[in-house]
Amino acid sequence: MQVSIVVIGKELLLGQVIDTNSSDISHRLDPLGWQVGDIQTVDDDAYQITRAIDRAFESSDVVITTGGLGPTKDDITKQTLCNYFGGELVHDASVLETVKRVIARRGLELNDLTAKQAMVPSSCRVIQNEVGTAPIMWFERDGKVLVTLPGVPFETREMLDRQVIPQLIKRFPSKMNYEHRTVMVVGYSESLLAMKIEEWENSLPPYLHLAYLPKPGLVRLRIDGAHTDNPLLISEINHYHSMLCNLLGENVLCNADIPVEEILLQELEARGLSIATAESCTGGNIAHLLTSVPGSSKVFNGSVVAYSNEVKEHLLGVNADTLAAHGAVSIPVVEEMATGACKALGTDCAIATSGIAGPSGATDGKPVGTVCIAIKTPEEIFSFTHHFPGNRQRVIIRASMTAMIAAIEKIRALPRYSVE
Amino acid sequence: MQVSIVVIGKELLLGQVIDTNSSDISHRLDPLGWQVGDIQTVDDDAYQITRAIDRAFESSDVVITTGGLGPTKDDITKQTLCNYFGGELVHDASVLETVKRVIARRGLELNDLTAKQAMVPSSCRVIQNEVGTAPIMWFERDGKVLVTLPGVPFETREMLDRQVIPQLIKRFPSKMNYEHRTVMVVGYSESLLAMKIEEWENSLPPYLHLAYLPKPGLVRLRIDGAHTDNPLLISEINHYHSMLCNLLGENVLCNADIPVEEILLQELEARGLSIATAESCTGGNIAHLLTSVPGSSKVFNGSVVAYSNEVKEHLLGVNADTLAAHGAVSIPVVEEMATGACKALGTDCAIATSGIAGPSGATDGKPVGTVCIAIKTPEEIFSFTHHFPGNRQRVIIRASMTAMIAAIEKIRALPRYSVE
Repeated sequence: MQVSIVVIGKELLLGQVIDTNSSDISHRLDPLGWQVGDIQTVDDDAYQITRAIDRAFESSDVVITTGGLGPTKDDITKQTLCNYFGGELVHDASVLETVKRVIARRGLELNDLTAKQAMVPSSCRVIQNEVGTAPIMWFERDGKVLVTLPGVPFETREMLDRQVIPQLIKRFPSKMNYEHRTVMVVGYSESLLAMKIEEWENSLPPYLHLAYLPKPGLVRLRIDGAHTDNPLLISEINHYHSMLCNLLGENVLCNADIPVEEILLQELEARGLSIATAESCTGGNIAHLLTSVPGSSKVFNGSVVAYSNEVKEHLLGVNADTLAAHGAVSIPVVEEMATGACKALGTDCAIATSGIAGPSGATDGKPVGTVCIAIKTPEEIFSFTHHFPGNRQRVIIRASMTAMIAAIEKIRALPRYSVE
Repeated sequence: MQVSIVVIGKELLLGQVIDTNSSDISHRLDPLGWQVGDIQTVDDDAYQITRAIDRAFESSDVVITTGGLGPTKDDITKQTLCNYFGGELVHDASVLETVKRVIARRGLELNDLTAKQAMVPSSCRVIQNEVGTAPIMWFERDGKVLVTLPGVPFETREMLDRQVIPQLIKRFPSKMNYEHRTVMVVGYSESLLAMKIEEWENSLPPYLHLAYLPKPGLVRLRIDGAHTDNPLLISEINHYHSMLCNLLGENVLCNADIPVEEILLQELEARGLSIATAESCTGGNIAHLLTSVPGSSKVFNGSVVAYSNEVKEHLLGVNADTLAAHGAVSIPVVEEMATGACKALGTDCAIATSGIAGPSGATDGKPVGTVCIAIKTPEEIFSFTHHFPGNRQRVIIRASMTAMIAAIEKIRALPRYSVE
């Protein structure tokens, strides 16, 4: 089943907002074997929306739109769809009830403008939006379906899961089976990796396909398979997946697609270990990534973001002499930061970073992008210096990923916790 | 001048990668008055790429592609463009030299696969990619231009600024003038705001257009104008912009489009004040946002991410009795956290957060989304409890924004620093 996505909103064409909705939609359709064939992003403009829908229906049976459904003047998608599919805008009492409920939950009162959300095209079937004010509209024509999702990312995610995906599966039952496997690889550039696995890649049967997905600090390899014979597909994709893992050996960070911060937390939990971070140049980003994972409080105690030397001394116990002798961006300092973090925050392990994220701050021998990283475990303290290319944001992200990957490797070397 | 963007890569259609490149491209073209008319995201597939380019040229004079230029098997954009524009792939010695330089700077050696990047279509003019291995190709046909950018976001941003934008401006000089103004508004929902400014919006001349851009905790209002008469355009857009600011009074957070964390840092710097954060549920996200701004070290000393009660007690000096009597998610605890942060990190001001980001952790009377926030300034300590809807990620983001907005309001009430 092929799906096209139409993203509606001038703010996206102006670069003021980054579209995360189409990624959320694709991510949810993919495990069902529904392929997103294309994504079109267009202005809040009747001609453009209509042309995009025409183009989408050329190759797809299902079109999902997102955005353009707000109550304000610039949103004209509802009227445009009404013109496209016929009928007229009519008042829907059940929509008004839902909107009132959503508004009340937000502690607000219904106003005239929001009340207009209850006007819907007579040619659509309404799916009640339980988390926002724009009703979801389901249109059918010539056996093809168009569904509208709101532009607010949270509403799109929720309503996809609660209503839209289940209803699409029911409407279009499928015979094809789809599977995919991911391997997360560290220590290879994309091109060196491609050369390393060339023979393996050439041996793939025609119904398996490989994609390279580089991320900061690692490359994800993804095998996609499609076949009507499900047992064959599963056995073959598993076979090629383990071949690939064996071929890459120690460079496999993980044999599934799991965020690096989640892998780190899992490895710690499996060993009954706790962790803290002491962050200078990464400025709390590692703590932020770790605490974005539900349940992280089981192993993560906290962090000291030590931007000034005073904080490094007072809260992490870094020696003033060490700072004076080596400078804040140095191996001795990050090692003392890591040790200090374990002590101050009462943990078994710690990650410490200190570097020059830029654009200013470079010194002789320490250009922008120089980052010192220390990993402390109950058994050792491991530290290294790395030069990251790119701007401030990129240095922060890459240093965070590199530090977490190093921590995973050190923690994996420790015995797993056993409950006896 | 109308531009179309074609984003190439299966990973985007699978939802594995979020496209930030088109937003970066639009963001840079917009101040020049170059309008991005549409964005198409397609698979690494010759037919799809060709069709997307055909469609793009239907309405635009300039097409910018991004992605699909890696050295691995799945990237077929170069060959497809060679077929589209004619000619054949030829070896370009200057590209090989650039690739070698880029590779050497990364501390790597050139391998056979990467060396293939030096093969380019004879029908294009090459712009050397100074920060990556995929050469930038500039094609012309019937007075229209197609430029290819690499998929790596950092490379796209750098090469747009260094080469592509300057060369496009030179190729297509323009007579139309474009201006835009933004107002960041707090304390209004999108629909209430629309009602409040309805009369003003109706009075806009036809060459000025308003867009609503909601963000967590605020709504951005953006006025876009286009006119051949530049002095008229500037005087009128300024006139309507100040009218709007006056109309919204204290609800204007800022009369330009500046990230909230940057506004906070500016207000602190203008008063010679320093700040720290003490974060429980926001897990370091506020520190991360503040330290993402270059130069933040001038006013930001650091942060304590206090996930466990022990850290709240030991590093922030929160009283064990307060924790026992009121629980970690309480006004007395965040107030003590804020005071403790000022003391421990040696700052004038502090932001403290403690809440239940979910999905677990809810208790009687404290559902998921409950967040207590305290703002400490040299003059007062201000605190409040807010219930944020949505999942863990959304609660963290909205709590971070709400805390920073509250801090801006409190700090603005203080006198500005004067050097005497």
